[in-house]
Order: sequence, then structure tokens, then C-alpha cells
Amino acid sequence: MSKRNAIYAQSGGVTAVINATASGLIEAARSHRDRIGKVLAGRNGIIGVLREELIDTSKENRSTIQRLRETPGGAFGSCRYKLTNPTPDDPDIQRLFEVFAAHDVGYFFYNGGGDSQDTANKVSKLSQQLSYPVQCIGIPKTVDNDLSGTDNCPGFGSVAKYVAISTKEAALDVASMSESSTKVFILEVMGRHAGWIAASGGLAGEGANEPPHLILFPEAPFDSSKFLAKVEATVGRIGYCVIVASEGVQDGDGNFLSDAETTDAFGHAQLGGVAPVLANLVKEELGLKYHYAVADYLQRSSRHIASRVDVEQAYAVGRGAIAAVAAGKDDIMIGIERLQDKPYRWRLAHVNLSKVANIERKVPRSFRTKDEYGITARARRYLQPLIRGEAYPAYRQGMPRYAQTKNQLVAKKLRHYEVG
Amino acid sequence: MSKRNAIYAQSGGVTAVINATASGLIEAARSHRDRIGKVLAGRNGIIGVLREELIDTSKENRSTIQRLRETPGGAFGSCRYKLTNPTPDDPDIQRLFEVFAAHDVGYFFYNGGGDSQDTANKVSKLSQQLSYPVQCIGIPKTVDNDLSGTDNCPGFGSVAKYVAISTKEAALDVASMSESSTKVFILEVMGRHAGWIAASGGLAGEGANEPPHLILFPEAPFDSSKFLAKVEATVGRIGYCVIVASEGVQDGDGNFLSDAETTDAFGHAQLGGVAPVLANLVKEELGLKYHYAVADYLQRSSRHIASRVDVEQAYAVGRGAIAAVAAGKDDIMIGIERLQDKPYRWRLAHVNLSKVANIERKVPRSFRTKDEYGITARARRYLQPLIRGEAYPAYRQGMPRYAQTKNQLVAKKLRHYEVG
Repeated sequence: MSKRNAIYAQSGGVTAVINATASGLIEAARSHRDRIGKVLAGRNGIIGVLREELIDTSKENRSTIQRLRETPGGAFGSCRYKLTNPTPDDPDIQRLFEVFAAHDVGYFFYNGGGDSQDTANKVSKLSQQLSYPVQCIGIPKTVDNDLSGTDNCPGFGSVAKYVAISTKEAALDVASMSESSTKVFILEVMGRHAGWIAASGGLAGEGANEPPHLILFPEAPFDSSKFLAKVEATVGRIGYCVIVASEGVQDGDGNFLSDAETTDAFGHAQLGGVAPVLANLVKEELGLKYHYAVADYLQRSSRHIASRVDVEQAYAVGRGAIAAVAAGKDDIMIGIERLQDKPYRWRLAHVNLSKVANIERKVPRSFRTKDEYGITARARRYLQPLIRGEAYPAYRQGMPRYAQTKNQLVAKKLRHYEVG
Repeated sequence: MSKRNAIYAQSGGVTAVINATASGLIEAARSHRDRIGKVLAGRNGIIGVLREELIDTSKENRSTIQRLRETPGGAFGSCRYKLTNPTPDDPDIQRLFEVFAAHDVGYFFYNGGGDSQDTANKVSKLSQQLSYPVQCIGIPKTVDNDLSGTDNCPGFGSVAKYVAISTKEAALDVASMSESSTKVFILEVMGRHAGWIAASGGLAGEGANEPPHLILFPEAPFDSSKFLAKVEATVGRIGYCVIVASEGVQDGDGNFLSDAETTDAFGHAQLGGVAPVLANLVKEELGLKYHYAVADYLQRSSRHIASRVDVEQAYAVGRGAIAAVAAGKDDIMIGIERLQDKPYRWRLAHVNLSKVANIERKVPRSFRTKDEYGITARARRYLQPLIRGEAYPAYRQGMPRYAQTKNQLVAKKLRHYEVG
């Protein structure tokens, strides 16, 4: 096997630990110099690959690559861009293989969610059709945890830990003040189609009286009178009520609550978001004082409180991707296989990419309580290990010392190409 | 000096470290058993004192009191209730002294912001008028950092650290994706009248290109065209723009932006909040994709990333309050005096309560850059030491082990009293 270069691209929304995957992959590649030349990272993901904007990661020194393990965001940039029509005649595909050939690329690592696994799968097939040999490996990443073929997704455990801790902390605040102040607190979290992140809020407490008192899943149609009755009963019983709401909450007709338009003082249409819509409902119908938080990007970038298990797994799938190509593998995703809940044990697995592509995994009914407002013991057994352990970054003068990569591009060899 | 009991009450919004103050106070009281009997904590603050709902902190074991040092929220509860008319004829004041007498209270510790210091000051004066001797000590607490008579307020440093880190982390996320996704990110933070919390976001980076690119202070009137020009220029120059906005941002006429009413799909009036109003402005006027986060209670309860300096100071003012009464002091607040910026050195100070009461300290002009969108070197010198050091709580199974107090009330001796 001759020495060939690798392309690594991050795809879709970034996470607190996707750079740990990059770190694992680059470190492992450096220990396979006999077979793997340079790891070229697509600047802003696949867009950069198509534009031939390839970051030469060999210019990054060892300590930077090491520190990527504790740096959130996507150091080389990411994007939402889908190769919509991966056939040999598609201009994007032709360009992709031109870039591969121009830079002697024999390995393609695509680090993302369902779409990326699908693309990696198709590129692998095309590589055979076009007789240009490139080993394609999918590496899982998504805070939504909705990827099939793996027990869980790197990125999710850290969001889950952030949401569980934030729910617990905010609930202590609300409980302290509820006698004379806020009675209802709503935390809006990510997860437009799958409620894994909302579910993780359930780890903040257990039993009817411990917060969160209601979790709103996108999997369960929102019923406002049932919701209001439960909020009112909770406030009546313990004086306050904490709600974790997925941004993807939908009514019985499948309309997102967050799509309810409001009109601002200037007459502009304004998207409501789930938290303000729920808060307004609580105020208007129950007359209760509310507060709400919208975690937004904070939840998926909160490396300062990442789950140690998540960081380890994110790093491991990066290393595992290199081990896989070194073993001659192609057209697979590096998955995580759970061997045991207690004590938690896991290992890497090789999953056929055709089995992964574009199957969205939702929170199963058995993980949601009968009334649809909580998580079951089964859900706890699944979720709990994923938030285990802390993996604090290094600090200087009170702030985390996150890595700053140079992101130096290799010289272009091809003509200009317009993407999109 | 005979042995007498103490009353401790928390007041106003709670913080990530107000329990550290309680911990310091109770621990120190326990080492002065010759003079101080029980520390009775008002359940939900002064409301509980008036209702004679007094928590017997002697029932809490040592490890619980120790763990309070790392527990957010207010373990004994707090409230927003002002003794509006502190004269000898006022029913609340008469009741307060009845409770003092019934429980042999010789020490009153009031842990809060400007209003609480004012109340402590008045209760001290009334104690002399009514010839009921009680030593009154104010203990500072406020995330807003707007109290005078002290260099900074316990509670602020931890919010500042949370906001600085969150800004830095979210900015890394936005930068990674800005090529094809969100260009403008807004983090809404607390501080309705003083912009100290917004200012702390400035510690995330330095220089024109590092985030945050704009800080919006309540001290500087909001000018939408100047704001939009700066946002547009920043996006044009580096591809994205991060904004930290105080909830108290006001237009030139002193109207809060957050008071701009919107109407929701059901025709209900809805308060906008600052972040959505700004986001809408950016979308409508510049056509840029935005995201926003509303940190709300998360910022002031985020004990998981508290500032070590803040925790130490919060604990110290609690201990200092006991030392003060043991030294015969009355009518003072335990302040924090800065001795030196670099390396940071501080000590406790005794501040006459009449000098503290109800003077709101704003972010001075010299701390804000010329264009009003950033912090100066002078502001950095002031803010930086306050976020120093980490003080992680203990964890079990991935979650912080926060203290759970028993909150057992002492037997009531007086008739029922209706508060408010």
C-alpha cells in the first residue's frame, strides 16, 4: 500500500467535542506515516473541499492538535451543504474526484450526521464506479443523537450533561424564590425532530416533585389543556414548576409551536420560539409569573462542562477511523456499541454505511412516561452513562485556553469552481 | 456579653454563591458558641422572619453546611419584599422586633442588595430607638454588581465568568459555521440598570476582530442605525458578529427595548425581550441569518463554573459578618476592598451602612470604549481578577452533588401574622 493523503471534513452543526474527533484522527494519522501522508481538512467542510480550500493540518503543532481535544466549535469550519445528486455526471461529484486526484487523496473521512453518512456511502460507491480508489469512512457527530447504527452520537453526551446540570441549577434558583416571584420556568433546548436533548433534562431529578416537572418532546403532540393542567397542579403542590421544552414541540396537526408568528412593535413578523409561546400561554391562562431561558448555541458549545465519556468517545471515533483505513476498510461508519449499562462499558464498531444512511432515530415510546411528560427508568439507564465524568479544559486567568489553529491552505492545483 | 441567637435572611434574586455566604456565616457562628446561640434562617427571607418561620440551622449537619459552599440558589429561600416604612409604628417593624424578642435574637444579618442594606441600616437605628439591642450587619449579594461601598459584590464574579465563557464558546461555534449559516449571534444577559454583566462578556476576547464585537450597555442609549452599521461592517470584515446585550438596553427616550410589545398568534400581547427585538432588526434591515440565546436564570445559578475568587469572597463575607458582631460591631456592611490589581489582592472592610444604602453603581464611562460597544483596558483591569480560578463542585454519576438542607422550623411562639 503506497502512501496517500487524507481528506477530513466536518459537516453540519458543530459540537463541544467534534474537535476531539479531529484531534484523535490527526494524532492517529501521524502515527501511520508509512501509509497516510497529510491530513487535509476541508475549510468550512465539504464546501472547502469543492473549492480546493484544503487546510494543511501538518502545519499545526502537536500541542495545538492535543488542545483541540478540549476546544469546542469546529476548528477547520463546517457547513450545511448536501451533495444532492451523487452520480458520476454531477458537477460536484466530478469536482470532488478531481480534487482527490489532484492531491493524491486515498482516504475520505466525513464527520457528521445522517446526511454525511449518506454522502460518504455514495462517494464510496462512486469511487468504485469511477475506478478511483478512495476509502470512505463516516464518523458520527450530532448533538441530536438521532443517528442509527450507533448506540449514541459523539456530541450528544455533552449537551445532555449541560442541559441536565442547567435544569438542576436553574430549578434551585426558582425554588428559592417561588414564594414571592417566578412560579414557572421554561428551558428551551435543541432537537427539532428527536427529543433526546429534552429527555436529558430528566436527569436533573427523579420522582414527581423533583424538577423538571414536565419535559416536552417533539415525539408527543402538544396538548395545551393537558399541559396547563399539569403545570397548575405542580405549582399547587410544590409552589413552582420547571419545564424542559424541545424546540421541536408540535401540535396535533404537526405544526411547530415555534413557527407561530408574532408581530413586533414595528409591524415585522417575528418567529416566536417555543419558550416564549409556552410562557405566554402560562401567563394568559394561569396568570402565573414565568421566566424562560433559550440555551441555543450555548448548549452545544459548552465544552467547559463536557461529559468525559463523550470526549473519550469523540476522540476514539477519530482514532478508530484511521485504524479502519489502515486495516483496509471502506464504506463503513465508526459506531459506538454499548456492551453494558452498569458499570458502563462500550467499544467501537464498524457499521456498514448503507445501514446508517438517513434513518432518523427518535426517542422511543418506552423511554417516555405514560403521561408523556417525563422519562422512564429505561431512559435513565440509557442516558445516565453518557453524561458521566468531567473533562475540564485548561484555564488561564479564569478563561479556558482553547486551541487556535493556523488553518494554512495547501497550494491550489485546479481551476476555480463555483459551489452551490 | 450573654449568649444570644442570630437571624440570617437572604434577600432578592439568589446567586451561584449566596449559599457560600450562608456556609461561612453558619460555620463561623458555630465556632463562637460562647456568644452566638442558634443561627435562625428566615424561610424565604424576611417574609419568613415576619411569619415566624425560622429555620433552625443547628439541625443541619456539618457536611451539609460545608456543601452549601458549592450549592447554587438560596438554600433557605429568598424573596423580594421591602420593609417600605421602617418606623416604630409600622406593623412589619413591630412584628420584626416581636420575633427578635420571642427568639432572643441579638444579631440580624441581612444578605442582599441595596434595599437590604438600607433595611439593615434602618433596623439598626430602630433597635436603638426601641431600646431593643440588636446588632445589624449587612452582607452584600447581587449579580448586578451595582452596590456601592464595596469594590465588587459576591455573586457577580461567577455570572461574569459564565457570561465570558459562554460568549467565547458560542462565538467559536458561530465562527465555524458562518460561511453558510448563522452570521449574527446575540446573547441576552441580566442587568436591567447597570451593565456590569454585559461588560463581563468583553473578557471573552480582545481587539476588534475577537468576539464579542458589540456589547450593549443599559448606560448607553441604543441607536439602531449606528448598531446596524457596526454589525454589517463586522460581518463584512470577518464573516460573523457576536453581540452581548444587557436586558436593560434602552432607546434615547429611556424606553426599554424589551418592553416593545409583540402580539402572538392568539392575539395575546407578549413581551419581546431584548435578544428577539435585536434579532428581528438584524433580519429585517440587514437580511442576515441570526441566532440568539437568553441566559436568564442559567447565568446566576451556574455554580458548576463559578469563579473561585467569587466563592472565596462570598464565603469570607459570611465569616466576616460573624467576626464583626463578635467584635461588637453594628450598622455596618461587610465590604470587599481591592488592594491591588496585579496580582489581585483584597481584604474585607467594614462600611458604614448609611453610606451604602440605595446608591446604584453603574458602569463608568471610562470603562466603555469611545463607540460604546466595548470595554476599555481599565474595565479589563477591574473585571479580570473577579473571574479568576475555578471552584468545581463535587460530582456523582455526572451530576453535581448539591446540598439539600432539612429546613426544619423552630416552634412558633407568637400569634399568626399576615405579611404584605
